[in-house]
Amino acid sequence: MTPVASNLQIDSARLWDTIHETAKFGATPKGGVRRLTLGPEDKQVRDWFRKACEAAGLEVHVDGLGSMFGLRKGRDMSKPPVGLGSHLDTQPTGGKFDGVLGTLAALEVVRTLNDAGIETEAPICIVNWTNEEGSRFAPAMMASAAYVGDFTTDDILSRRDAEGVTVAEALDSIGYRGDSPVGTQKFTSFVELHIEQGPILEAENKTIGVVDSGQGVLWYDGQIIGFESHAGSTPMPLRRDALATLSEIVLAMESIAKKHGPKAVGTIGEAVIANPSRNVIPGEIAFTIDCRSADAAIMDALDKDLRAAVAEIAAQRKVEVKLNLVWRKPPTHFDPRLVDAVENAAQALGYSHRRITSGAGHDACNLNTVMPAAMVFVPCKDGISHNELEDATQADCTAGANVLMHTVLALAGVAS
Amino acid sequence: MTPVASNLQIDSARLWDTIHETAKFGATPKGGVRRLTLGPEDKQVRDWFRKACEAAGLEVHVDGLGSMFGLRKGRDMSKPPVGLGSHLDTQPTGGKFDGVLGTLAALEVVRTLNDAGIETEAPICIVNWTNEEGSRFAPAMMASAAYVGDFTTDDILSRRDAEGVTVAEALDSIGYRGDSPVGTQKFTSFVELHIEQGPILEAENKTIGVVDSGQGVLWYDGQIIGFESHAGSTPMPLRRDALATLSEIVLAMESIAKKHGPKAVGTIGEAVIANPSRNVIPGEIAFTIDCRSADAAIMDALDKDLRAAVAEIAAQRKVEVKLNLVWRKPPTHFDPRLVDAVENAAQALGYSHRRITSGAGHDACNLNTVMPAAMVFVPCKDGISHNELEDATQADCTAGANVLMHTVLALAGVAS
Repeated sequence: MTPVASNLQIDSARLWDTIHETAKFGATPKGGVRRLTLGPEDKQVRDWFRKACEAAGLEVHVDGLGSMFGLRKGRDMSKPPVGLGSHLDTQPTGGKFDGVLGTLAALEVVRTLNDAGIETEAPICIVNWTNEEGSRFAPAMMASAAYVGDFTTDDILSRRDAEGVTVAEALDSIGYRGDSPVGTQKFTSFVELHIEQGPILEAENKTIGVVDSGQGVLWYDGQIIGFESHAGSTPMPLRRDALATLSEIVLAMESIAKKHGPKAVGTIGEAVIANPSRNVIPGEIAFTIDCRSADAAIMDALDKDLRAAVAEIAAQRKVEVKLNLVWRKPPTHFDPRLVDAVENAAQALGYSHRRITSGAGHDACNLNTVMPAAMVFVPCKDGISHNELEDATQADCTAGANVLMHTVLALAGVAS
Repeated sequence: MTPVASNLQIDSARLWDTIHETAKFGATPKGGVRRLTLGPEDKQVRDWFRKACEAAGLEVHVDGLGSMFGLRKGRDMSKPPVGLGSHLDTQPTGGKFDGVLGTLAALEVVRTLNDAGIETEAPICIVNWTNEEGSRFAPAMMASAAYVGDFTTDDILSRRDAEGVTVAEALDSIGYRGDSPVGTQKFTSFVELHIEQGPILEAENKTIGVVDSGQGVLWYDGQIIGFESHAGSTPMPLRRDALATLSEIVLAMESIAKKHGPKAVGTIGEAVIANPSRNVIPGEIAFTIDCRSADAAIMDALDKDLRAAVAEIAAQRKVEVKLNLVWRKPPTHFDPRLVDAVENAAQALGYSHRRITSGAGHDACNLNTVMPAAMVFVPCKDGISHNELEDATQADCTAGANVLMHTVLALAGVAS
C-alpha cells in the first residue's frame, strides 16, 4: 500500500448525505424506509444510483435479475474486479442503514479514490443486489443466490409476490431487466459492509466487527393438532390444549439453544391459533422455528434435541405435532485471507475491533460459496434492525466505509 | 302429581324431527348450523317457531329485544307462569343442539300436554331468548341479561355487530322488535334444558345432569411488551421474547388451575403476535384469559395466584405484562328447591343422574339472579360443542325433555 493510500479517508459528510438523500425514496413518517424490491421507490433509488455511478465514471450494467454493477477500471484489466456493495431494497417497515450503508459506502469508496486520483491494479466493481430482503418475493438474497447457481434465472423470474406479480413482470415494469446474463460479472473477491443488526459491538463498545463466519440456519414449519373445546366445561385433566403444547415447545427451544450457547439461537417467531376465541381451548396452531449456529455440529445437535423434546411433549399431552425442516443452510466460513485483510485494515486505521459471527444472512454469505468473500460490521443502536428505529452513528458508518476502502485497496492493489 | 302425569312421556320422534327440521335453517355442509342472531336464518327459525307455537295454541308475544314468549294458559291465571326454554341462535360454525334442544323440548312439552289433555295449575311459558351466543353482538346472553336488569334495553339496542349494524336495526330488519317491554313477562321460576357442552356425563355414563351451580367467570385482557429483534443476531441472554413470556404465563395458568382443581379451569384462548415473522423475535403479544370456578373463594385465589405469577414472569424476563380484568361474573347457585325438583324428576323417570356444575354460561344463570332457576343437562358426544361436529343421541334428548316436562309439571302443578 502506498503512503497516499494508507492515509486516505472517505468523505464522511458526503457518505452521510447520500444515506439521507436516498432515504427519501420510500421515507416513512417514523423516520424509516419502505422500499420494497422492484417497486416504484426501488426504481427511484436505482435511477439515482445509476446516475451517481455514471457521474463517478463507472461503467454500469444490469443483469437479468436487475442486480446493478458499476465497474471502475484498474491498471490491469485482465484481472476480474474486486466486488463491493450490498443492497438498496428494505423491509416493509425498514430503516435507513440495512443494505443501504454497504451500497452507498461502496459508491463513496469510488468517489474518494477518484478525488485522490488513485488507480487500483485490479478493477473494482460496486454492486446493488436485487431483493436481499425477501419481503416482496421469496427467497431472500434471491439475486446473489441465482448468481452463485443455487437457482436458475428462469426459476427466480417466475416467483410471484402476494399480488401475483412475477419477478419478470416487476423487473420489466421498472425497466430493470438487464442484458447481462446472471453470473457473468466475475469477481476475484467480494467485500460487504453492513450494520451488525445485533447488540454485540455496541455492548462491547467496538467500532468494527471483523466478520469471520455466518450462522447456518434451520427453518421448520410446525403444526400442533390438539382438540378444540369449551374453556368453561372441559376439566383441566381432559384437555388437549394446542397453546399449552406450543408453550412447552417454545420454552424447550429456548433452553436447548441456551444449552448449546453461546454459539446457538432458536426462535419461534410465528404462531397462529386456528379459530381463536376467548372461551375456546385452542385446538390447532401453526408455527415456525428459526434455529441457527455457526457450527455445523451444533446445528445437528439443535435439530436432534428439538425433535426429541417435541416428541416427548406431544406424547405427554396426547396431541399431534408435525415438524418439517423446510430449509437448511450450512454455516458460512468467510475466506481467512479476506478476514485478515479486514482485520488489518481496522487495525491500521486504529479502530477498536473484534471477530464476530453474522447472525443474519447476507449476499456475501451466498457469494462466499463461489469466491473469497468477507464482511465488515459496524454497530447499530440497541442492535435494532428491520425496524424504522434502526440507527447508526455517522462516525461508525464512516469507520466502516474506511475499513471497506482499505480492505478493497489491499485486495485490488494500488497501481504504483 | 296425578298418575296420568307421572306416566307421561314426550313424543321422542316428534322432538327429533323438529330438531332436524329447524337445522335446515342455516345448515352447513358439515352437518352443523350457522344461524347468527337476528340474521336471515334466525328470522326463518323464528317464523317457524312462532307458527309452531300458535299451532300449539300458545299466545305468542315478543319483547323489545326480540325474545319470544309462548304462553300456555293454566287453571289459575292469577299466578305468573313457569318459564322453560333456551335459544335458537347458533355459533358461526355451531351445531344442531346447543340452545335448540332446550327451546324445541319446551315446545314438545306443550305439545305433549296438549295431546294428553293436561291442564296445569299455573300457566307455563316457553321462551326463545335473543342472542345467547354473543357471536354477532356482544355480550353473550344479552337479552336475558337485559331482562334481569344488568343492561338497559337502550344500551343493548345500540350495540353494533362487526359491520356496524345495531341490534335495533337488526331487529327491525327481520321484524322482531316486539311490543312488550323487556322484563315485563314475569315467571315464578325458569327451567332450561341444554346439552352439557363438556365430557363429564358421557365419561361417567350418566343420562341426566342435575345442574346445581354455574361457574363464575374471570375474563382478562393481557398484553406483553417485550422487544422485537432479529432472530439470528440477538444472543439468547439479551432477548426479551414476548412469546417465551406468554408461554410461561400459559403454563402458569394451567398449573394454577390444576392446583385449585377440580373446581377450577383456566384457559388462554387467544394470542396474537404483532407483526409476526419467521426470523423476528416476537416483541408484542395481545392475549386473553378465561378463568372459572363455581366457588367464589377459589375465584379469588385464582386471581391472586395468576397476578403473582404474571408479575414474577414479567420481572424475570424484563418485559412488561399488562393484565386487565374485563369481566367478573360471580358463581351461580341454582335454587335448591328447583334443583331438587329436577333431581326428583330424573329419579322418578329412572334415569341415571348426577349433580353437575355448568362450565358454560347460560340464560338460566342470568335468570337465577332474579327468580328461582335450574337447568337439566344431557350428554353430548365427546363433550364437543360450538362445533359442527356437536352431537347428542335421540334417547338422551328425549330423557332430557322428559325431565324438563316433569320438573315443570311439579313446579306448575297439574289441575285436578
